[in-house]
Amino acid sequence: MKLASLDLGGRDGRLALVSRDLSRAVLAEGIADTLQQALDQWADAAPRLASLSDALNAGTAAGSFPFDPAQALAPLPRAWQWLDGSAFHAHGELMAKVFNITNPQPHDKPLMYQGMSHQFIAPTAPVTLPSEADGIDFEGEYAVVTDDVPMGTDAATARGLIRLVLLVNDWSLRTLARPEMLTGFGWVQAKPACSAAPIAVTPDELGEAWKDGRVHLNLLVDWNGQRFGAANGGAMGFCFGELIAHAARTRSLCAGTIVGSGTVSNENYREVGSSCIAERRGIEIVDEGAARTGFIRFGDRVRMEVKAADGTSLFGAIDQPVVQG
Amino acid sequence: MKLASLDLGGRDGRLALVSRDLSRAVLAEGIADTLQQALDQWADAAPRLASLSDALNAGTAAGSFPFDPAQALAPLPRAWQWLDGSAFHAHGELMAKVFNITNPQPHDKPLMYQGMSHQFIAPTAPVTLPSEADGIDFEGEYAVVTDDVPMGTDAATARGLIRLVLLVNDWSLRTLARPEMLTGFGWVQAKPACSAAPIAVTPDELGEAWKDGRVHLNLLVDWNGQRFGAANGGAMGFCFGELIAHAARTRSLCAGTIVGSGTVSNENYREVGSSCIAERRGIEIVDEGAARTGFIRFGDRVRMEVKAADGTSLFGAIDQPVVQG
Repeated sequence: MKLASLDLGGRDGRLALVSRDLSRAVLAEGIADTLQQALDQWADAAPRLASLSDALNAGTAAGSFPFDPAQALAPLPRAWQWLDGSAFHAHGELMAKVFNITNPQPHDKPLMYQGMSHQFIAPTAPVTLPSEADGIDFEGEYAVVTDDVPMGTDAATARGLIRLVLLVNDWSLRTLARPEMLTGFGWVQAKPACSAAPIAVTPDELGEAWKDGRVHLNLLVDWNGQRFGAANGGAMGFCFGELIAHAARTRSLCAGTIVGSGTVSNENYREVGSSCIAERRGIEIVDEGAARTGFIRFGDRVRMEVKAADGTSLFGAIDQPVVQG
Repeated sequence: MKLASLDLGGRDGRLALVSRDLSRAVLAEGIADTLQQALDQWADAAPRLASLSDALNAGTAAGSFPFDPAQALAPLPRAWQWLDGSAFHAHGELMAKVFNITNPQPHDKPLMYQGMSHQFIAPTAPVTLPSEADGIDFEGEYAVVTDDVPMGTDAATARGLIRLVLLVNDWSLRTLARPEMLTGFGWVQAKPACSAAPIAVTPDELGEAWKDGRVHLNLLVDWNGQRFGAANGGAMGFCFGELIAHAARTRSLCAGTIVGSGTVSNENYREVGSSCIAERRGIEIVDEGAARTGFIRFGDRVRMEVKAADGTSLFGAIDQPVVQG
């Protein structure tokens, strides 16, 4: 099923089911007011939501109305936890080369940081940031939303606790990122709020494309109307189950925890493009000795979308301008 | 006023006022069900809570009952954001010496990481962790709870947006911490859930001890009944206003954001002791060439408390065992 949080009052929006073709929606009234509420009692809510979803897709759901993506907030407008991995080795190895990191992270343990989760920006809202000089960049990535995950859960079990899949733009401020990394404390200023596409999908909606705990689909990134990247999510060096298990090594995760893949990247990035500007700049540094591509300017527009095999938009689109705050 | 969240149902507990001497409590019924609710509408809730607090302290509050610390959850059992600084230079400089960090953070910018906030452990609940081999350590620190803080807020304005002060034990897993620092991504596995003392206080409750955006009081740490540290919070190299402004440089903070001081540490740590085991081990390494003091063993008990000038317990005590999970 496909779920969205509509901007009908409240900081968390109102939970709605959305039809497979994104044309119609219906509020999940009587089941859960918000997506977080549904996640807090998933075993009870999921079958009821699924019935309503089936009725919506059959055209028999009472009270359905046209789905307007402009009315959608992020599926979780705020979340209790956002843990973002860096699971694509092609990206990590390129960045290590660019930054002369002589001891890159070995591939036996995922890289992961804790990011801010009290705000996820709506898919069509302007993204407000203080300064172009901070090196504004996008990062297209997949993310999953978990159920409650007890401390010590293994990767195989964790994979079974994935409830939803999201499309996320992890906005990053590159000028601030490197100095924060060097402190060892990770990122605070370099990682402002992320954006999310309007639709959260259950893994079964992905069909064959959900395999090995990975989303085997191209993440389409357009920057000011030009195709910038179309890298495939299947290349993750660690699957989402492994990322969740890594996070749950010394803590329990609550229902509604969002775990990200990191910027989607493929070995053949010179052909498929990149999901962030930093990667393209890294390729330019390696190939040409210097970066040519600049970062985001205020007024720029970034669009991200993922198409199913039949051409339908799976998560709806993130499509928004960046403006000065 | 003094506020607590009592374990009377719900994941966020029920908001109560507690008398200055911690003997009596009364539910904030009709004002706010939970502390987060009160923070979400502080301008409206605060004067009403203050009136009830006055009545409680005067012995005239209807429905008051004896306050039982064992019934208290953390003031915010879950929070939307936890940003922890490392604001005591004495601690930072010692650790840099121990780890041979030749480029320690200059004192012109605070160190800060984003920690997990979806769980704060109740002050008397057992702390469950997977393994002694992880190097289990405590960190006694002060923290503040903010109102909404717009992006770009300066330090002076930020200080005026501090609504509450907390006493926090930031549990840390030292064996995991150093490898995570070296990745530059900061801590995930090394920073499990924190504990918090039962009482959140408004800054005015601290009287003269709240000055320059700092808590000028000794943080008493006992490990298995032995005094381990009594360092003073007044030695912060950055005040809480500066820490909040640092956090709000590229993001807005939501009401209920918790900002921590980092482990309380004084230049004369050989006399006043330390607020974490890692610091004592660091002193031993510097003075004697090797650490003698081991980390926490399962069954150990850690107590933290802060006394006002008149001897009353300001935040109530954190007093709990560490057990294997």
